[in-house]
Amino acid sequence: MASASFIAGDWGTSHLRLYLCDATGRVLERRAGPGVARLAGDFPGALAAAAGHWLTSGVELPVVLCGMVGSSIGWVNVPYLPCPLPLDEIAAGSARPRPAVCIAPGVSCVNVHGAPDVLRGEETQVLGALHLDPDLRSGRHLLCLPGTHSKWVIVNNGVLREFMTAVTGELFALIRDHSVLLRPGSAGGSGSRTGAFDRAVKHVAAQRQASILQMLFECRSRQLAGDLSAQDAPAYLSGLLIADEVSASLAGLGTRLAAISRVLLIGEPALTGPYAAVLATHRVDARQLDGAAASLAGLARIHAQLFAGEAHV
Amino acid sequence: MASASFIAGDWGTSHLRLYLCDATGRVLERRAGPGVARLAGDFPGALAAAAGHWLTSGVELPVVLCGMVGSSIGWVNVPYLPCPLPLDEIAAGSARPRPAVCIAPGVSCVNVHGAPDVLRGEETQVLGALHLDPDLRSGRHLLCLPGTHSKWVIVNNGVLREFMTAVTGELFALIRDHSVLLRPGSAGGSGSRTGAFDRAVKHVAAQRQASILQMLFECRSRQLAGDLSAQDAPAYLSGLLIADEVSASLAGLGTRLAAISRVLLIGEPALTGPYAAVLATHRVDARQLDGAAASLAGLARIHAQLFAGEAHV
Repeated sequence: MASASFIAGDWGTSHLRLYLCDATGRVLERRAGPGVARLAGDFPGALAAAAGHWLTSGVELPVVLCGMVGSSIGWVNVPYLPCPLPLDEIAAGSARPRPAVCIAPGVSCVNVHGAPDVLRGEETQVLGALHLDPDLRSGRHLLCLPGTHSKWVIVNNGVLREFMTAVTGELFALIRDHSVLLRPGSAGGSGSRTGAFDRAVKHVAAQRQASILQMLFECRSRQLAGDLSAQDAPAYLSGLLIADEVSASLAGLGTRLAAISRVLLIGEPALTGPYAAVLATHRVDARQLDGAAASLAGLARIHAQLFAGEAHV
Repeated sequence: MASASFIAGDWGTSHLRLYLCDATGRVLERRAGPGVARLAGDFPGALAAAAGHWLTSGVELPVVLCGMVGSSIGWVNVPYLPCPLPLDEIAAGSARPRPAVCIAPGVSCVNVHGAPDVLRGEETQVLGALHLDPDLRSGRHLLCLPGTHSKWVIVNNGVLREFMTAVTGELFALIRDHSVLLRPGSAGGSGSRTGAFDRAVKHVAAQRQASILQMLFECRSRQLAGDLSAQDAPAYLSGLLIADEVSASLAGLGTRLAAISRVLLIGEPALTGPYAAVLATHRVDARQLDGAAASLAGLARIHAQLFAGEAHV
């Protein structure tokens, strides 16, 4: 505990990921806890339970949190900051439910479709990405943060300009868990998970006028036709959805960016990998950054801005 | 029972709808029973239980069935007939698990996206529509049968040429029942169900490059922005989905049909009404035919073809 400087926490709907960090943001210890949706309001208690002796060793460490803990179902509802938003203003927009606890705000915009859009948690990851890579702090960049609700974000000279959400991950889970599309009562077909994913991606690319509402039925009909195995159907579904999201996002944000040749993907490697593969079919170069590392770097940046100079070990 | 001639049944995944009919197909009595998914295999028993004294009055009435009762999870797996399919060949493709019981086949095709596609139950509704309206028996017609899995069907001179499926109804139910998109924990906004539906339809029409994966998030973000009430969100969701399906279907099948000026909608009036409203925004004239009436007419046509001349009261 000698070098412990602050506690960083990514507190989402499903999980709390808590880190004990030194002054440079290096992780000394990790803990996990219940997500916001599983708590009946006692956030201080849940934090104390997860942090354990980190918070009871006599020194009050600052706690910097991001994610749904700052939403209407969280500890405190931290208002969305509107775009365009200089990323270094996130810290100032944070809420302090207790003097030593800071919760990052979400961000709102009017997206390229003219609709209101919001994100919460990803602002800290984008801030972290810029902290980790100085090249991102100047010029115009497109970032994609895949997940339950994927976010496509445009950053210009350190300012979050606008973004766009796609519900790709949520639809995948809904269909996998509840739909008849993946369980047509027939096996048949052969292939591989990777092969089925690539096949779906190619198929979407060849059907430019199609809606994903039409193509999703193929998860079932191809199985009935002996053209896809039950084992490969989830990968085919994933390929259809991600290819549709990537294609529509590049088309939509292409009206904002002269030419899209590079995208920074931030998220779990198991998810950013397939997105990179799809982006490659569009001849877009994709770099991948681990989502947890991005969150941590962003939380460390907020800590440095808010608590620098304040007394702590 | 004096004039009873046959029993017609639309036996789907969720419901059995059974009709006692006279020789002209007029309904004398109606019964309901459990759908295919709720039965553990005893289809003769379930039929007898639902039909009751219709089948125990001493005269063995023919039974004509369509729907998932003819699938791999049904009474008998009746093979799909491939397109192009003269509709009057449906009767000959039926299965007879018992001499007096006939189950209609499904239909398969390679759809406009080059993917295998299937339908089961709708073939009998299309057959019934042609039986009810002689004008449909010649020339080229586009039919839309909205539902859990909507079917867009091209019929040419009494031949089912091809069709295309959209999983619109299933996605609506999945999102309504399981998604966070309709429950953002905030009310706000005002409007009307019809107004919210129309607003979504207009929004989809204005965003031609958008994917429904992107627009679905608006069900949540508009509520958070106070731009849509929780009460109106399901209608907004419905408008987004149906507008996307209609737009993509007209575009996709537009490559097959020189100009689409009319569509026959077959289904529940509560569903065909909204589809007609969306089609009107595309300047496409929509007629509506009740789905149960279409099924009945198709089953009567199959009965007439298979059992005409056979002995029954």
